[in-house]
Amino acid sequence: MLHVPVDALTDRHTRILDAAERCFARAGIHRTTMQDVASEAGMSPGNLYRYFPSKDALAAGLAERDRAQLAADFGFLAEADDFVSAFKALGRKHFMEEPRERSVLCLEIWAEATRNPNFAAMTHAFERELVGRMSGLFADAQRRGRLPGTLDPHAAAVMVSTLANGLFVRRAVAPGFDAEREVAAVLTMIGAVLRGAVDLSPSVQPEKT
Amino acid sequence: MLHVPVDALTDRHTRILDAAERCFARAGIHRTTMQDVASEAGMSPGNLYRYFPSKDALAAGLAERDRAQLAADFGFLAEADDFVSAFKALGRKHFMEEPRERSVLCLEIWAEATRNPNFAAMTHAFERELVGRMSGLFADAQRRGRLPGTLDPHAAAVMVSTLANGLFVRRAVAPGFDAEREVAAVLTMIGAVLRGAVDLSPSVQPEKT
Repeated sequence: MLHVPVDALTDRHTRILDAAERCFARAGIHRTTMQDVASEAGMSPGNLYRYFPSKDALAAGLAERDRAQLAADFGFLAEADDFVSAFKALGRKHFMEEPRERSVLCLEIWAEATRNPNFAAMTHAFERELVGRMSGLFADAQRRGRLPGTLDPHAAAVMVSTLANGLFVRRAVAPGFDAEREVAAVLTMIGAVLRGAVDLSPSVQPEKT
Repeated sequence: MLHVPVDALTDRHTRILDAAERCFARAGIHRTTMQDVASEAGMSPGNLYRYFPSKDALAAGLAERDRAQLAADFGFLAEADDFVSAFKALGRKHFMEEPRERSVLCLEIWAEATRNPNFAAMTHAFERELVGRMSGLFADAQRRGRLPGTLDPHAAAVMVSTLANGLFVRRAVAPGFDAEREVAAVLTMIGAVLRGAVDLSPSVQPEKT
């Protein structure tokens, strides 16, 4: 993966990864060349290769950085007194404050993951970590009596992932995407699951309307 | 768009569109050549060009076919006595019976839509039609007293789209995607919205847990 731990990322590494993100989102991963990334980062290709020897190395660097960000987000969630408020802050960050480019990049990475084993491994690791950490957090809150005992932590975590992925798609491609309303609606859904108003445990059949 | 109406699609058109879908999903839209599609369909490139003169024409053909399918799905939903059972049948069809390739193709088309205006126009038209038809269906069921008067038909339709897109992403890339459980969980969420257990109208603040 990355040649240096994320906490030792130099300004130069950060500048290159930011440049790679912009190129991948703009032109697509397949169409982006190392030369494009070097130009975008304002350096020579020879210099770029000293930091990242290939597009796969760039992708691995981006994945490492995303996982470090995921860990920070979970640190924030774990310390929050109120999950829904904490999710609201994360929702604002990911779907409103971060540039739309990052949602486009998600689509790019997912599409590439369906045919490139390196991208597939990174995507799987990220998704496993997201669902694993989220279920752990919910199970812990349950033990401390802060979430209902009937909640299925894994099913709830998978639902959060489904809703977040759906929002990334809509932000990238839906005409008239309304971040404020749609993030609020998704938070309402997550809130309903967490307070036990919707039971997602697999043994329960969907109720009829 | 297509050179012939969808109901006049010949076996030859269908064979070409099926071949294009397989190529696009396998290699990506950008990497697929007209020659690849011709080989996959078992015909000469010259013959293929008589039916579809470009990749954009193939994509438009696929989009027209998807919209015809969407119309058929909505015909089925409109006639159903029980929305949740009807959604269940559609969920089984799209996420279990259809090959996983079709979910991969969704990711491909969305990624391409972020930079190719033809794909963007097709994606927007599809999404507008999906949300428009779905809200119309919900509003109609409301008028006939079959859905609660408090339901916001547009917000509910956008939520169905968010959940469906999230499932397409998970089916294409999530490790250990469990179609049976995940489709059931999404149906439970949709059921909760439709019976009024979760209020998505924009004026309502998410409740705290």
